[in-house]
Amino acid sequence: MANVTETAVNNRVVEVYDLFVKHMKEFLAEANLNHEEYTNFVNWADRLGRSGEIPLYLDVFVETYVLQAKYKDLPGTEPSLLGPYWTEGSPLVEGKPAKINMREDEPGEKLRFKGNVSDVNGKKLANAKVEWWQDDASGYYSNFDSDAPDFNLRSHFYTDENGDFEVESILPIPYSIPTDGPTGEFTRAAGYHSFRPAHIHMKFEHEGYETLITQVFFEGDEWLETDVARGVRQSLMTKLVDKGDYKEAELDFVLRFDN
Amino acid sequence: MANVTETAVNNRVVEVYDLFVKHMKEFLAEANLNHEEYTNFVNWADRLGRSGEIPLYLDVFVETYVLQAKYKDLPGTEPSLLGPYWTEGSPLVEGKPAKINMREDEPGEKLRFKGNVSDVNGKKLANAKVEWWQDDASGYYSNFDSDAPDFNLRSHFYTDENGDFEVESILPIPYSIPTDGPTGEFTRAAGYHSFRPAHIHMKFEHEGYETLITQVFFEGDEWLETDVARGVRQSLMTKLVDKGDYKEAELDFVLRFDN
Repeated sequence: MANVTETAVNNRVVEVYDLFVKHMKEFLAEANLNHEEYTNFVNWADRLGRSGEIPLYLDVFVETYVLQAKYKDLPGTEPSLLGPYWTEGSPLVEGKPAKINMREDEPGEKLRFKGNVSDVNGKKLANAKVEWWQDDASGYYSNFDSDAPDFNLRSHFYTDENGDFEVESILPIPYSIPTDGPTGEFTRAAGYHSFRPAHIHMKFEHEGYETLITQVFFEGDEWLETDVARGVRQSLMTKLVDKGDYKEAELDFVLRFDN
Repeated sequence: MANVTETAVNNRVVEVYDLFVKHMKEFLAEANLNHEEYTNFVNWADRLGRSGEIPLYLDVFVETYVLQAKYKDLPGTEPSLLGPYWTEGSPLVEGKPAKINMREDEPGEKLRFKGNVSDVNGKKLANAKVEWWQDDASGYYSNFDSDAPDFNLRSHFYTDENGDFEVESILPIPYSIPTDGPTGEFTRAAGYHSFRPAHIHMKFEHEGYETLITQVFFEGDEWLETDVARGVRQSLMTKLVDKGDYKEAELDFVLRFDN
């Protein structure tokens, strides 16, 4: 094959692509697209790609199924979407509670969150790294669509000797994914609203364990059932307890062994 | 649903997307992607989208399956890929043979092509519009990647009272799809070469009939079996007959009724 060097072939790409073609043929046999529908799809996908919304679209409409396929029968905390808003380099915060990096006058309702990190055998994991990112009280993410300083409401911290952590932040709020581009065209055509329920993103790392990327949700949120990104898991739900001048929530997290 | 107007919902989008999700879940259950593989895919797809190669990728790696799914059991000439190189507005050429629009000194081997257009009941179709586009002797398409004037080797013409047509052109040659972008990354990783066998694109239109978009191939081409776009159909194969200072090929085309 003239222009292919043998060593460049990636067997996993070949395997996954062959599976993709097999299932795509089954999809097409049922969907029976005519050429105009195919062309409309190509034009939309081209607009999506050129606008830079591919990661947004895939993270909202595909990632959750990737995770469910891999983790549905495994012990340990269920992952949820990484989403398009993660970014490297969040500041370290310390103390008990550790205060998530935010503006002096950060608007929003105060939240205290308690958690514990253990492994699937019940062993408490000290010194696990926890990354935390969330939207602000206007529904925006720093480093992306908010006017706040970079890394606002983004931090990382470590569990104590018992695997515990406790942080102070503000309550995230439900927000709409961007609707002014091709992803919005799709949500309107499919009859979906564009909202995600309020959630906190967390990422857990500890040597010897698989990195856990997940989200925490709050009972009573109006978008839980119809989350545009289908990212809600019942096991990731917390109850907000009113403590007077702040709300409190807690959840324990269980890591899987690396393999 | 707050931001959705009922009238904007497209039931066909809903139906097709639901089928897509069903089959995507089946694909993911077998492919068992880990998060790094998913992220690598998102990053590649984002590069693909931003580079403007989405139509190229889909036309090369998906369109043929869309067509096979719809037409595999139907009477009439099999369609093949429209591909990314069609463009509106080709000049009319007349005469018998009609000479395809080309440069005075167009390089390449001379080709005469004869065809007939009828319907699935055998009725000859007079005055059917035929569009013709092809690459030049360097493997490039006018209006896209060649230096030739716009619409070089692009024309349209009409069948005579017996449904016949006859044109003079040059032989197309096999060519490589672009390999310097994310589509090329994919072909290398999948171990595919990047060549298409020589082919002529034709599009047939006649009132009362479904538009036929197809391609014509030539026996003996080295890339027929491994066409990167999987667009070859045995029923679209022609034999090149040596007529001294030109080659001759012929094929008849059968249109389906519009529905």
